[in-house]
Amino acid sequence: MKGRFITFEGIDGSGKTTQLRSLEAFLRASGHDVVITCEPGGTPLGRRLRAAFLESDATVSPLAELLLFAADRAQHVEHLIRPSLAEGKIVISDRYADATEAYQGGGRGFDADLIAEVIELATGGLKPDLTLFFDIPVETAFKRMANRHAASRANRMDGETAEFYSSVRRAYLAIADREPERFRVVDGTRGVAEIEEDVRQVVGKLLN
Amino acid sequence: MKGRFITFEGIDGSGKTTQLRSLEAFLRASGHDVVITCEPGGTPLGRRLRAAFLESDATVSPLAELLLFAADRAQHVEHLIRPSLAEGKIVISDRYADATEAYQGGGRGFDADLIAEVIELATGGLKPDLTLFFDIPVETAFKRMANRHAASRANRMDGETAEFYSSVRRAYLAIADREPERFRVVDGTRGVAEIEEDVRQVVGKLLN
Repeated sequence: MKGRFITFEGIDGSGKTTQLRSLEAFLRASGHDVVITCEPGGTPLGRRLRAAFLESDATVSPLAELLLFAADRAQHVEHLIRPSLAEGKIVISDRYADATEAYQGGGRGFDADLIAEVIELATGGLKPDLTLFFDIPVETAFKRMANRHAASRANRMDGETAEFYSSVRRAYLAIADREPERFRVVDGTRGVAEIEEDVRQVVGKLLN
Repeated sequence: MKGRFITFEGIDGSGKTTQLRSLEAFLRASGHDVVITCEPGGTPLGRRLRAAFLESDATVSPLAELLLFAADRAQHVEHLIRPSLAEGKIVISDRYADATEAYQGGGRGFDADLIAEVIELATGGLKPDLTLFFDIPVETAFKRMANRHAASRANRMDGETAEFYSSVRRAYLAIADREPERFRVVDGTRGVAEIEEDVRQVVGKLLN
């Protein structure tokens, strides 16, 4: 018995979390045993680390950030992802190692070999069977986030520039070029229902 | 202007923290500009990470532990140690990278090359000018810790075996063999005043 490991990637505002919830409901309704998780914060330790990170007044050095996400991932892989896959479950994670390549590699500019090394170390080589990247232009992401947070006045995109997110997006698209079989680009500018249809089709192929 | 970086190492109960406080007072009285710090937890982020780690109910995977200490160290080096050294200060840290080699390498059995790689990454190659290793037999450490914690009923050595601490000690002594100039073994079984004398002599040589 061997499960399936699916990851969802995309910048904030890409609609990936909406699609993840929809896919979860769809797969459960079809009788699948699904584990929904996320990075960072997929384990109790990870949630504490994430809180420590977010509460920190001081800026976090980019290297400390990289290593902190790696620590979160190591615990996540060992305590949740691998055991669930061993039980034959479908594990769907809202972000995983590609996010490090995109955000810390593309966004923060860390050397590609270093990023690959840290990912290999934290994951022990565990790769997703399928990754869906919800792609939208950065301007669209900013508009969506502005609407979403107009009421709460919180904006997670504060502090990072459009240029940063453009680099992140380019890094994601470079993964698609390198690993077209595993890493699928989903056009996130369309309506929710249309995207849902796409997602179900691609995931359906993996599961059959 | 270039400061000096001194680290204190030793297993719990070795007396290193007592000696660190004594050296601090001595150096300050001599007019030196001293920064006392520790790992893990030398920065605000590090203290939050340390708390997250200690509060975690679930066991922490050894790899997550290794990466978490590395994240703490990266922040420590970048935000506290390097800036203080650049200001010409004497930085004394209660534990640093050698502790990872001893505890995660010797104690937990991680591969030496992997440990070296993670240390290099987190420190950017910053090595102490001088390291004092307070050496005591493991049985002595256990006895001291038992006395120290008889009242509080807390015992930080709970959960690790004498065999674990013997491996940690051996790993520290191996560093002394490899880097005798930087890494000094101090016999921690003697009286406090006698050890103080030793420490002041060795540190005095570095500063003159």
